[in-house]
Amino acid sequence: MLRYSKIKSPTFAINSEIAQKNIQEMKSKLPKPCTFRPHFKTHDNKRTAEIYKKLGVTKITVSSIEMAQYFRLIGFFDITIAFPVNIREHKQINKLAKNTKLGLTISNIESIKKINNLLSYKCDAYLEIDTGYNRSGIDANDSSTIKNCIDSISQSENLNFCGFLNHEGRTYNANSKEEIIELANKSIHKMQSLKEEFKSYNPIISIGDTPTCSLINDFSNIDEVRPGNFVYYDLMMMRKGVCSIEDIAATVLCPIVDINPDRNELVIHGGAVHFSKEFVEINDCKAFGKVIRHMGKETYQLDEIITSLSQEHGTVRVEESDIKQYSIGDLLEVIPVHSCLTANLMKGKTLHY
Amino acid sequence: MLRYSKIKSPTFAINSEIAQKNIQEMKSKLPKPCTFRPHFKTHDNKRTAEIYKKLGVTKITVSSIEMAQYFRLIGFFDITIAFPVNIREHKQINKLAKNTKLGLTISNIESIKKINNLLSYKCDAYLEIDTGYNRSGIDANDSSTIKNCIDSISQSENLNFCGFLNHEGRTYNANSKEEIIELANKSIHKMQSLKEEFKSYNPIISIGDTPTCSLINDFSNIDEVRPGNFVYYDLMMMRKGVCSIEDIAATVLCPIVDINPDRNELVIHGGAVHFSKEFVEINDCKAFGKVIRHMGKETYQLDEIITSLSQEHGTVRVEESDIKQYSIGDLLEVIPVHSCLTANLMKGKTLHY
Repeated sequence: MLRYSKIKSPTFAINSEIAQKNIQEMKSKLPKPCTFRPHFKTHDNKRTAEIYKKLGVTKITVSSIEMAQYFRLIGFFDITIAFPVNIREHKQINKLAKNTKLGLTISNIESIKKINNLLSYKCDAYLEIDTGYNRSGIDANDSSTIKNCIDSISQSENLNFCGFLNHEGRTYNANSKEEIIELANKSIHKMQSLKEEFKSYNPIISIGDTPTCSLINDFSNIDEVRPGNFVYYDLMMMRKGVCSIEDIAATVLCPIVDINPDRNELVIHGGAVHFSKEFVEINDCKAFGKVIRHMGKETYQLDEIITSLSQEHGTVRVEESDIKQYSIGDLLEVIPVHSCLTANLMKGKTLHY
Repeated sequence: MLRYSKIKSPTFAINSEIAQKNIQEMKSKLPKPCTFRPHFKTHDNKRTAEIYKKLGVTKITVSSIEMAQYFRLIGFFDITIAFPVNIREHKQINKLAKNTKLGLTISNIESIKKINNLLSYKCDAYLEIDTGYNRSGIDANDSSTIKNCIDSISQSENLNFCGFLNHEGRTYNANSKEEIIELANKSIHKMQSLKEEFKSYNPIISIGDTPTCSLINDFSNIDEVRPGNFVYYDLMMMRKGVCSIEDIAATVLCPIVDINPDRNELVIHGGAVHFSKEFVEINDCKAFGKVIRHMGKETYQLDEIITSLSQEHGTVRVEESDIKQYSIGDLLEVIPVHSCLTANLMKGKTLHY
């Protein structure tokens, strides 16, 4: 139970029960042969990691060596860094690889050669495939580069080729469930074709994004999934139909510090250093967060949204008829637009209940 | 001297010499009676605070009680929290006010009454005036509310009315030097009129924003200035003509982790968790940062900009003719769009040189 009276300043509040439910639901959808390797970048905290551990999750994904070091320290021994390997960090990688089953993500031949020369311990290697997001990775259609990379990894002394990994980030920009499912299926199909094409190397295929993993139900031909955001979800996911309000485990509690009845606006302590500047559009208006209210066991979405953010201030637009309900010092409970960025900003200001 | 070979991961690099020059230049512009009370939210670190201290700055501004506590601990005893007072933090405020000259910012009558009842020690009170930014504060034209608030503060037991404080945030959205100066002059004029109107209360006027303080040279009728961003400046300030490249004291060093010659793109380790998602527009394209290069004592702006950011990845667009210059593991030096948000994100990953 969340005790509002204890909250003095902007606080990231995690409902552990909902987080646990989200993990259980995702886990139970996966058939036995499919590895659940959730991405820990979303929460990046010990308490949520412990919920995963309690539910039997031991294989994890992170996005930096720093995060890998942290979760290794609290008892995770099988870690994939799903970010193109940064060869400058070879000392830290070696230190970790000494006593961790460490997976590296590689997306070009130069990195394979350079990191192989710098490694002192054998690491798992995943080739990053670009199925259309056009961020990092090798184009899924570029068989010749993929073949060269696999051969180079296979011939290397310190890399163990495991398979193909992708992150279909376009699903985060899709506007509907249907669009997400279409993108997801196309992307999975490309990964499955690669698995078939290079079957002599016995690759696994590992897919990433929360929209895909939340909306797809058939994982029979997928070897590994790495969703992260689903543990808390957020306004962006709710707007796309990926989750409903009952699935959102993270909110930001913000004290009201000023009220402007002339403009029907509240000013909260809750700014870019708490929420990040990520926004969604609601009725052609930028929304940097959406206000909700708990009444008993029910959660109500209010019309109030954060319409602008500066470093510490948030401006909340309120219906004219509602402005009198609010007083200086009241707390607003706000769903963040992107829980991963908010969690990163709110380290040390997080409350698990 | 910055030793690139020591940098392994995204690093916020502060050139102390430039920061010192920026502080000296700002300080030397102010006539004797005008108090220099720089905003410490930009840097929010000890090393830069020490440069200020060395230059004789003892009065400071912060934006949260947490920041006030931090800088009190490292030896600043005269602190204004330029953020509408959060009455929920009254215990921390009282603890600090016991042995600190503490200024609170108040922007409505409800806050005055509530905080006065909660204070155990006398605090300075500044009435926040809204000169047009429409964020927090009392409308500069609303003489009756301003009078009521001053009277309420004056009659209160624990608040000492000091004057009017504003933050003309519209200057950050202005597109040229001329526009900034026009906004600044109008805003200063409103503050001076209030000072005249309420002269029987002997108020000071305190102005805030970096664009105004950097571009205005006549401070003869201003009692206090609170710029913060100017200590490092950033891409946003450079684009508006508020500073030049030689004034920028903060950059982010990012390792290249992937190269896509087909799209003329580099992928760097440097994402929203390092830069924030703030952007400027350069030639109709979103820029989340701009690449520079040091050659001897000269700094060159390259055409390369960060065109998109996800949590840890940054995508940098490169001229076709230049892509071959780059290798995996090279470091890019990037000017952040908004140094305040970047500094907040890069705590613990900052290098002063």
